[in-house]
Amino acid sequence: MSSEFDIIRRHFTRPSKSAELGVGDDAAIVRPKNGNSLVVTTDMLVAGNHFVDDADPTALGWKTMAVNLSDLAAMGAEPRWALLALALPEADDQWLAEFAAGFFKAAETYGVELVGGDTTRGPLTLAATLIGEVPQSAALKRSGAEVRDDIWVSGSPGRAALGLAEAQGKVKLDTANGPCCADALLRPQPRIALGVALRDLAHAAIDVSDGLLADLRHILESSGVAADLFDADLPWGGLPIDAHADPLSRQCLLNGGDDYEIVFCASPDRRLEIAGLAERLALPLTRIGRIVDGEVGLIRLLDDDDQEVPFEIKGYDHFR
Amino acid sequence: MSSEFDIIRRHFTRPSKSAELGVGDDAAIVRPKNGNSLVVTTDMLVAGNHFVDDADPTALGWKTMAVNLSDLAAMGAEPRWALLALALPEADDQWLAEFAAGFFKAAETYGVELVGGDTTRGPLTLAATLIGEVPQSAALKRSGAEVRDDIWVSGSPGRAALGLAEAQGKVKLDTANGPCCADALLRPQPRIALGVALRDLAHAAIDVSDGLLADLRHILESSGVAADLFDADLPWGGLPIDAHADPLSRQCLLNGGDDYEIVFCASPDRRLEIAGLAERLALPLTRIGRIVDGEVGLIRLLDDDDQEVPFEIKGYDHFR
Repeated sequence: MSSEFDIIRRHFTRPSKSAELGVGDDAAIVRPKNGNSLVVTTDMLVAGNHFVDDADPTALGWKTMAVNLSDLAAMGAEPRWALLALALPEADDQWLAEFAAGFFKAAETYGVELVGGDTTRGPLTLAATLIGEVPQSAALKRSGAEVRDDIWVSGSPGRAALGLAEAQGKVKLDTANGPCCADALLRPQPRIALGVALRDLAHAAIDVSDGLLADLRHILESSGVAADLFDADLPWGGLPIDAHADPLSRQCLLNGGDDYEIVFCASPDRRLEIAGLAERLALPLTRIGRIVDGEVGLIRLLDDDDQEVPFEIKGYDHFR
Repeated sequence: MSSEFDIIRRHFTRPSKSAELGVGDDAAIVRPKNGNSLVVTTDMLVAGNHFVDDADPTALGWKTMAVNLSDLAAMGAEPRWALLALALPEADDQWLAEFAAGFFKAAETYGVELVGGDTTRGPLTLAATLIGEVPQSAALKRSGAEVRDDIWVSGSPGRAALGLAEAQGKVKLDTANGPCCADALLRPQPRIALGVALRDLAHAAIDVSDGLLADLRHILESSGVAADLFDADLPWGGLPIDAHADPLSRQCLLNGGDDYEIVFCASPDRRLEIAGLAERLALPLTRIGRIVDGEVGLIRLLDDDDQEVPFEIKGYDHFR
């Protein structure tokens, strides 16, 4: 039977080139570049809640890293180091090897080194802490949106929720959409390069983990503003044909979580630069509305005749 | 029913004076003082494993912070910031208020500010990440012990294990020992001031979380050395009378975890300074042995006639 130390040595100890001290002491030692601040975030994934018990361990390893990276992306931070706390029902070497493969694949893709953690017995729970760097005062916050700013979103929000709906047998997607929706759910791509590029372009940003509308509302509340969204301008094109008219697709785009796309606000003067950025990153960036002066946190969804389209905000809440 | 956001706002949002950005955005932003490195550690506590389901939430809050602070102490770091990831079976406001009271009591006692975290539904699991600071290259590591160093231990290791044995009905302690053993178990005192003072005094250090012998062995293995301990010099005085001869007390002192005392190695030239430090901190520091040149990791326990006393090393391992 593997011991705690075997697990750490066998699966989670890799040389760290950038830490002053990595895995294997009471704590790790890291050091930002001169003039930089550190950006720190933690996210916990729990079996039966965030994923099914028999979820693919490689995808789970990737996602454990990716959801945390997404928070760094939303701050404009460059990822550097990670800590990983695991509660495991048993020391299953095969499962651990596959989980570690996915976790380190994401870590290598985004330049992160694992420097520490904790391993204990318990119901399967995965908690990563990510540390990134950003030049002092350059971080993107939720609180900087200004009236007249454009509102943008990256990629195709709604895909992960559609992928989940298909996995749960609620919908059958065609061959054009099925794989990319499953991919969005299982292997989300944190928008690190976008976040770094937005440091000098955007006034505010957040990652879409709970739902496009719910997360946009956090920006509005933090910034003390309201928003008008244009229904026809939402990124329907990344979803199945007729998504615009299909209730499930609409629901997934407006309220689906787990896409880890970025919503951001920027001055209309920067539209050309943002279009250029989309091209450079090969990532669709869609202008979906504008910040307005109104009841703080209020979102209106407008059709082509400027009439309000009814909708509900149903962001994911673990305790509701 | 409380929402996730209510829980964070009501129980876990306090102003942060030292972070550039605290609770409430995608991530927190912190910045070490110029010239300092950051020391980071994470520990996860799981219901039914680290504590009983009906454990006092205030004590649990204290301990969640304290076990992580102890890792910083063992590195000689000054604690600064914390992240807290919680999985909760339900949003129980009374429980949360008591847990937060204990958590913040420890945070305030040791100068830590909570800057971020995550709250989700799941089997009760408490994962804190602590960030401390240390001047560059000043951190205490496990790997610096030298042959001829004295081996020291702080406080009275064994008390927490005796407190647990009493809580489990395995022993009845008298009024002189019962309360301090219960206290060691429920409200461990991380040795932060000792760790900071040892930066310039000790060659190596570790905190006793798994057991005195098991944790000392980590120092020996990291440093490539062996140790002789003197049975009569172990800190029996902090345990019940006749602890030296009592099998349970011996077992608790040698192999009991959860005390969060510090074992450290220092040159014999520093004995006077270390005695002065013990006095200044009002904390017993006991010289229990010496580092020797021998089979790496080997510990010998010697009686007054230099004869080996038999013992077992039974450090706590979650997967054995």
